[in-house]
Amino acid sequence: MNEYVAGLEGIPATQSNISDIDGERGILAYRGYPIAELAAHSNFEETALLLLDGRLPTAHALQVFDEQLRKNRMVKYNIREMMKSLPPTGHPMDMLQTAVASLGMFYPGSECLTGTQACAELDYVHNMSVKIIARMPVIVTMWEHIRNGYDPISPRTDLSFSENFLYMLTGEEPEPFYVDILDTSLILHAEHTINASTFAALVTGSTLASPYQVVAAAIGTLSGPLHGGANERVVDMLHEIGTPAKARAWLDKKLADKAKIWGMGHREYKVKDPRATILQTLMEKLVEYRGGRISPLFETAVALEAACNERLAVKGVYPNVDYYSGILYAEMGIPVDQFTSIFAVARTAGWLAHWKEQLSDNRIFRPTQVYTGEGARPYTPIAQR
Amino acid sequence: MNEYVAGLEGIPATQSNISDIDGERGILAYRGYPIAELAAHSNFEETALLLLDGRLPTAHALQVFDEQLRKNRMVKYNIREMMKSLPPTGHPMDMLQTAVASLGMFYPGSECLTGTQACAELDYVHNMSVKIIARMPVIVTMWEHIRNGYDPISPRTDLSFSENFLYMLTGEEPEPFYVDILDTSLILHAEHTINASTFAALVTGSTLASPYQVVAAAIGTLSGPLHGGANERVVDMLHEIGTPAKARAWLDKKLADKAKIWGMGHREYKVKDPRATILQTLMEKLVEYRGGRISPLFETAVALEAACNERLAVKGVYPNVDYYSGILYAEMGIPVDQFTSIFAVARTAGWLAHWKEQLSDNRIFRPTQVYTGEGARPYTPIAQR
Repeated sequence: MNEYVAGLEGIPATQSNISDIDGERGILAYRGYPIAELAAHSNFEETALLLLDGRLPTAHALQVFDEQLRKNRMVKYNIREMMKSLPPTGHPMDMLQTAVASLGMFYPGSECLTGTQACAELDYVHNMSVKIIARMPVIVTMWEHIRNGYDPISPRTDLSFSENFLYMLTGEEPEPFYVDILDTSLILHAEHTINASTFAALVTGSTLASPYQVVAAAIGTLSGPLHGGANERVVDMLHEIGTPAKARAWLDKKLADKAKIWGMGHREYKVKDPRATILQTLMEKLVEYRGGRISPLFETAVALEAACNERLAVKGVYPNVDYYSGILYAEMGIPVDQFTSIFAVARTAGWLAHWKEQLSDNRIFRPTQVYTGEGARPYTPIAQR
Repeated sequence: MNEYVAGLEGIPATQSNISDIDGERGILAYRGYPIAELAAHSNFEETALLLLDGRLPTAHALQVFDEQLRKNRMVKYNIREMMKSLPPTGHPMDMLQTAVASLGMFYPGSECLTGTQACAELDYVHNMSVKIIARMPVIVTMWEHIRNGYDPISPRTDLSFSENFLYMLTGEEPEPFYVDILDTSLILHAEHTINASTFAALVTGSTLASPYQVVAAAIGTLSGPLHGGANERVVDMLHEIGTPAKARAWLDKKLADKAKIWGMGHREYKVKDPRATILQTLMEKLVEYRGGRISPLFETAVALEAACNERLAVKGVYPNVDYYSGILYAEMGIPVDQFTSIFAVARTAGWLAHWKEQLSDNRIFRPTQVYTGEGARPYTPIAQR
């Protein structure tokens, strides 16, 4: 009997060649390519294809994939009508799980029924991945309008993935500077080994469920406050602090109380999270781009970051990816409760890469349990209880 | 470093006091009560409360729970309208995942944010469990009418859980004999330790996601053909055999070809699955009840069962729960693609019991991986690929 470890920490649940974390050196690599290189040279479309296929695509392969993504931006009007029946007060992540699950009804069943390499290489697996990745930002931005009582903005095929996302969100062609911020953030959030949502995708996928049900399960898992919800809480925290001048005292009080500070530290990294380093640079560029005209919230974030670097960096605790993405999204005018949706849009590429990998050598997940309950006992009639 | 085991087979993923399987002796017990005792003396409502709370309820506690279940049968009209936008050709399990996820939008967020015993004991946890268990059969039966173009039948509060299920399915007050078959089947399917869908519920629940997202993730996982879909395939198999006279020759051919025979054997049991024994008795009673007027499909099933018992029982392989439930549901006129939905209705009690248990001592699931991919490599410009 193997020993029980809570949360399966340190227990290998899969063999994977998709991504790797070197927590000592602060390196996250997708298919061997360090995230810093991808953030500097790649775009989300290419990174998604890299994750799915395992290699940087040729110019032709990337063009084909990009065209497939653009063509699959249209969603059926049933989806729009369905959204109109959902309560505007619901959380966007619940909507996203609902909408992705419903998309699966239009493509019922799975063509991959053997769980072998041949199955993972089916056109079906690639085509469904394209459909889902392409539609995620469309669904997210449609809902932003529908929940406010407006018709959604139709997607455009002449825009890149990130351009179209911001266009559908605002109805205006976005400034390239903000497109770059979003695209970099999507690259950085696309994959991160076996976190809880990716693990849920593996478990659901291991029964050979359809990719829509796999991604819906992962979205549900990501929605939890212990996983994807942290960057939303960073903004709440900054509002709680109030003004930049109060940041240092607020931090000292929290540290004295041993309270949780959102957006700080990461279990996997002993040094600074490489994704945070990249986003920090974007934050600095944004200050510069705005010529110093930044919001009070952003100023508070800068002040808190400085205080944290002074107090916590010596302990190896740094602002993490949630800290910077939360601030950047807020400064771009994205509603706070949509932050996790953007995370989901990006991570869908990683989830589907893991789904494909799981299919290539599948075995259903059925761990065991340590039974701690009652031994066999006879049924007691209700009058005798 | 722990050794990698595919599918985490034999690796304990949780400590649980909900159910236990003794595969050598063929005993499945919920909270210590053997399933045969529960099938003989309990009903689904009591069994669900037993699973959730860990003890057989007093008469008063059972009455309160039963009333709560009855009161929560109404669903908001938005859910009905949403269903009308879903494609009638979609699989009912995809619809079920969609509808349960959407229900979560009406109760956003989770009140359980500590992952401790106090959190599991919140009224919130009990109340959400009631709402979900009560609405599962309502959603399933509503969809059966909506997908056929008809208005759903309104639930009735004067009927038991299983009575109302069959009433909403057919529009007629069901014969007590069939209510008993369904109720027994629900008891037998309510829980089965850490199978893939229950494990998915644990993983999703471990991020403190809402119970709607937890159950939606479990539904997606159950939908896979390697998990919940087997009883549907039993019926397909019987149609393939065609007539009772052909059953023995068909079986011998399949055995010679070493082909998969649906509804036979179970990984956990060395002897006959105790649930199958109970359903087999119900099948015999149904033949008697019908005075021998059974369908050709049922006759084929009886002939195949006899052939299997002759050829396979010596190897410790017996018809399993899926075999008998598939035949019984088919004979009750339930559409084949709704079989897994009935499984989901029953298993929701088990999923929510595990959700509650996970919350009582939570740790996020984040296993590790064996990385088998490329080492660090520099980004290659697109022109050089």
